[in-house]
Amino acid sequence: MSATGSKSGGAGIGFALREDLRAHDEAAIRRIADATAFFRPDEVDVACELVRERLDRGPASGYEFVLADDAPAPPGQPPARLLAYACFGPIACTVGSYDLYWIIVDPAYQGRGLGRLLIDAVEQRVRAAAGRKVYIETSSLPRYTPTQRFYERCGYILEARLPDFYQPGDDKLVYAKTVGPASPGQ
Amino acid sequence: MSATGSKSGGAGIGFALREDLRAHDEAAIRRIADATAFFRPDEVDVACELVRERLDRGPASGYEFVLADDAPAPPGQPPARLLAYACFGPIACTVGSYDLYWIIVDPAYQGRGLGRLLIDAVEQRVRAAAGRKVYIETSSLPRYTPTQRFYERCGYILEARLPDFYQPGDDKLVYAKTVGPASPGQ
Repeated sequence: MSATGSKSGGAGIGFALREDLRAHDEAAIRRIADATAFFRPDEVDVACELVRERLDRGPASGYEFVLADDAPAPPGQPPARLLAYACFGPIACTVGSYDLYWIIVDPAYQGRGLGRLLIDAVEQRVRAAAGRKVYIETSSLPRYTPTQRFYERCGYILEARLPDFYQPGDDKLVYAKTVGPASPGQ
Repeated sequence: MSATGSKSGGAGIGFALREDLRAHDEAAIRRIADATAFFRPDEVDVACELVRERLDRGPASGYEFVLADDAPAPPGQPPARLLAYACFGPIACTVGSYDLYWIIVDPAYQGRGLGRLLIDAVEQRVRAAAGRKVYIETSSLPRYTPTQRFYERCGYILEARLPDFYQPGDDKLVYAKTVGPASPGQ
């Protein structure tokens, strides 16, 4: 991942990617999730629960993280400012399918390519782990239209629509992207 | 649920339903899952992990169980023999959608209506909790054809198919059934 450890994003933002989740990240993730004014409190709680699961159980949690700070954060140093993060992991009982559970960019830093950078970073890690497909679920509500377009621009295909999944009138859309070989050895 | 606590199933099997998961159930669930010769070891491990999650964390785990024994098992008494079980729970970030994660019937007791009885019991509990929809995911592989037909006989509709989800050539089928009102107050 060419951007790992880079100090310069596509639009001149300084940032640094890391994978090691730290205790202070729960508060930082809650901060940027709340700042979006996009997620319900129970949704933010779920995002934070995945952070605690990973902190408590490590890789056995099944949750992996990629985090973008505004500066490198060496172990043991005071934390840099979190700008964005993604949480993903292998789907149980599958061979090579991954879910991208969360991707949130601090609204003060949106529109500068950080979301795309995180998606690329997740796909690279999935590919490195011999993963084949990445799935993203999102809502059909109009306020998610920019989200849907973003996933489509990143190469995700709408594979399924489950009517009234989230609540009446709010369908689940399932996007998927093939990031690795369709079958072993291909 | 008329069958709860009954001593007589549709084909003359004695059984009793209960919801309180007990420590000995993990071994019993592993026994009937292995006996089916249907699930891979890693799949059985996942089924058992949900049992431990529920035992460790209680209702906060998000996993509910309905279990069928061959006789009533009063608290504190030696366990009866487990014949079948279902594991289900509310889906995070939804209003009223539930997943039926597992339903397994001891092969020595299949074909006697226990599966249907458990599905009915799950749906009744979802309805009682103001749930709207129950989702079941299964594989498209030919050996799952009887499973698919069973869900269809129980009133489940195939709502989505995700190609190559489980592994190349093994799609995920998503079945759903509306068990409660489509919207509050309806």
